[in-house]
Amino acid sequence: MEFDLIELIRQRTAQPRDDVRLGIGDDAAVLAVPAGQELVVAIDTLVDGVHFPRATAAVDIGWKALAVNLSDLAAMGASPAWALLALTLPSADSAFVEGFVEGFSLLARPQRLALVGGDTTRGPLTVSVAVHGFVPPGRALTRAGARVGDAVLVTGTLGDAAAGLHALQQPVRNDEGRAGLREFLIGRLNRPTPRLAAGIALRDQASACVDVSDGLLADLGHICAASGVGAEIEAALLPRSSALLDLHDDATALQFALGGGDDYELCFSVPASRLGQVQADLSRLGCGVTRIGRIVEGEGVRVRGHGGAWIDTAQPGWEHFR
Amino acid sequence: MEFDLIELIRQRTAQPRDDVRLGIGDDAAVLAVPAGQELVVAIDTLVDGVHFPRATAAVDIGWKALAVNLSDLAAMGASPAWALLALTLPSADSAFVEGFVEGFSLLARPQRLALVGGDTTRGPLTVSVAVHGFVPPGRALTRAGARVGDAVLVTGTLGDAAAGLHALQQPVRNDEGRAGLREFLIGRLNRPTPRLAAGIALRDQASACVDVSDGLLADLGHICAASGVGAEIEAALLPRSSALLDLHDDATALQFALGGGDDYELCFSVPASRLGQVQADLSRLGCGVTRIGRIVEGEGVRVRGHGGAWIDTAQPGWEHFR
Repeated sequence: MEFDLIELIRQRTAQPRDDVRLGIGDDAAVLAVPAGQELVVAIDTLVDGVHFPRATAAVDIGWKALAVNLSDLAAMGASPAWALLALTLPSADSAFVEGFVEGFSLLARPQRLALVGGDTTRGPLTVSVAVHGFVPPGRALTRAGARVGDAVLVTGTLGDAAAGLHALQQPVRNDEGRAGLREFLIGRLNRPTPRLAAGIALRDQASACVDVSDGLLADLGHICAASGVGAEIEAALLPRSSALLDLHDDATALQFALGGGDDYELCFSVPASRLGQVQADLSRLGCGVTRIGRIVEGEGVRVRGHGGAWIDTAQPGWEHFR
Repeated sequence: MEFDLIELIRQRTAQPRDDVRLGIGDDAAVLAVPAGQELVVAIDTLVDGVHFPRATAAVDIGWKALAVNLSDLAAMGASPAWALLALTLPSADSAFVEGFVEGFSLLARPQRLALVGGDTTRGPLTVSVAVHGFVPPGRALTRAGARVGDAVLVTGTLGDAAAGLHALQQPVRNDEGRAGLREFLIGRLNRPTPRLAAGIALRDQASACVDVSDGLLADLGHICAASGVGAEIEAALLPRSSALLDLHDDATALQFALGGGDDYELCFSVPASRLGQVQADLSRLGCGVTRIGRIVEGEGVRVRGHGGAWIDTAQPGWEHFR
C-alpha cells in the first residue's frame, strides 16, 4: 500500500521551500540548514485510544500529530521548517489518509512547514511525526536556567483539554446552551495551538521553558528538576477558560488546570526585570499570558490554594490526569 | 512510564559528539550541521508481527530498527550522525528496553551515531526511528539518474532475508549439519548490515542508487521509474549465498533473490566507464559487489532466465514476497 498513499500525501502536502533539495519520493530527503542556524529536532507519537479517543476524526488526528511536535519546537524557541511522518494504519484507507493530511496541512501551511519524507506501514493506528526547526546558535530555550526569584508564567488557559476529554466521555445532555462550551473544550483537546510565535518571542527573555503536554505540575516539575530549583504556584492565578469554569466546579477545574495534560501551552520562567517586556511582547502577538507563581529555593512544585494553605497534590486523584 | 525508560535509554546510548548541542532530556534536541554539508533525513517504522516475527528478540528489533534507517542513508551516500527514537510498548518493560537499546547501540556505536531524542508511549509494539546524516552539497545519490547503457550492480547477496523468514516459519528439523545455514539466514533477516561505507564510496560514481528493502524487482523498479528507463537482469548473475542455495532449489532461491525484501543491500547503476573503478573501490572496503544487468530503453525490470528466455515475474507467487 505504501506507494499510492505516499503519492497522495505528497500531492496534498506540496509546500515549496528553497531549502528542500530533495523531498518525498527517494530513500531519504536532502535538506539545507541555513548558514548560522542550529537545527532543533523532536519526535512524538500518538497511539489510537491512548493519545486520542478511538472515535477521533482523521482530520483532528492529522492536526494533533503535527501540533504536539510543533509545540516542542515552540518550547525551544525554534521556527519550524520540515517534518517526517511515520503513519501506521490497519488498512490502506485512503479516506482516512485524506482526512489526516487535510488536518496536518491546515496547521503546516501557514507555518510554511514542508513534509519532506515518511513511511506508511500496516499495523495498529499509530502516528509518529518528527519535526525540524531552526534557532540562532546558542539561543534555544531549555528547561534548565530558571533562577530563584524568577516569575513563572503560562500562555493561554489551562485544563481545557482535560475537560474536553471529560466531555467526550460523558453522555451528551440535551442542553443546547452548553453545547458550545463542550465544543470549545473538545476543540482544545483535538486541535491544540502550538505557541510558535510566543516561543520565538521568548528567546533571550525566558530563563527556562517547557510545553504543557503532561500537565502543569509535571511539566513545571521538569523545569524545576533541570534547573535545580523549586516553584510555588498560586491556584487563584491559574488562567482558566470560562467554558471550563462554567461546566465544572472550582475543585474539578483546578485539578484539570494543574494535572490535566494536552493543553500545549508554554510554561516558562522570566527574571523579574524582564517581566513587563515579556507580557507586552506576548500580548502584542495576541497570545494570552499570565503570571502564576515564582521560582524558589528547593525542589518540586508547590501549589497554594485559595485559602492560603498548600494543596496536597500528591494525594490520589491528582495522578489520574497526568 | 516515559521518564524512567528515556533515562535508561539515555544512559545506555551515551555517545559524545561535538555537534550535539543538547541531547535527550529536553523538549527537543539542538544540533549543529557542519558547515558545507547538506542534511539527509529518513524515517522508517517496524511493526510487531509485520516487519519482524512476533518472537523476535528485543536485541534484534533494536538492531533492525536502526539498520533499516541507516540503509536509507547508505542509499543516499550519506554519513550517519544522529537518530530519534519513537518506541511504543504495551507496557513499561525495562527488560525489553534494555535488550532493544543493546541491539541499537551495537550498530550505532561503531558509526558514532548519537541518539539525540525520542518518545516512549504505551500501545502496540511499534518502533519508528528517524536518522540524520550528512552529504556534501549536491552529491547525494538518488533514484533518478540511471542512463541507458549503465551497468546495474548490487552489493552482497540477495534473498537471504526471505530465506531466513522462511526458516523461522518452518518447524526445526533435527539436522545439525544445516543448523548453521539456517542461523546465517535468520541472522541476515534480523541483523541486516547497512552498506554505509559502500554508499559513501558510490558518491560521484553511481548514477542512481536504492536500497533493497522491498525486493530487487520492486526497488530496481523505483530506479527505473525515477530515471525514466528500463532494466534487464540476468538471473544467472544474481549473487546468492551458499546457505540460500544449499537449503533451497534454484527456482525458490531465485524467487527469494528477486522478490524477497529485507536484504538491505544497495542496488545501483554505474556508467560503463566507471565500472572497474567502482568494483575495485567496493572490494577494497570488503563489500561484495556483482554486476547483474544493465539499464535499457523503456520501462520496468525484465529478468532473463538461465535458458535465455524472459521470466514472467508478473505471475502469482512473485507478489507474495514483496
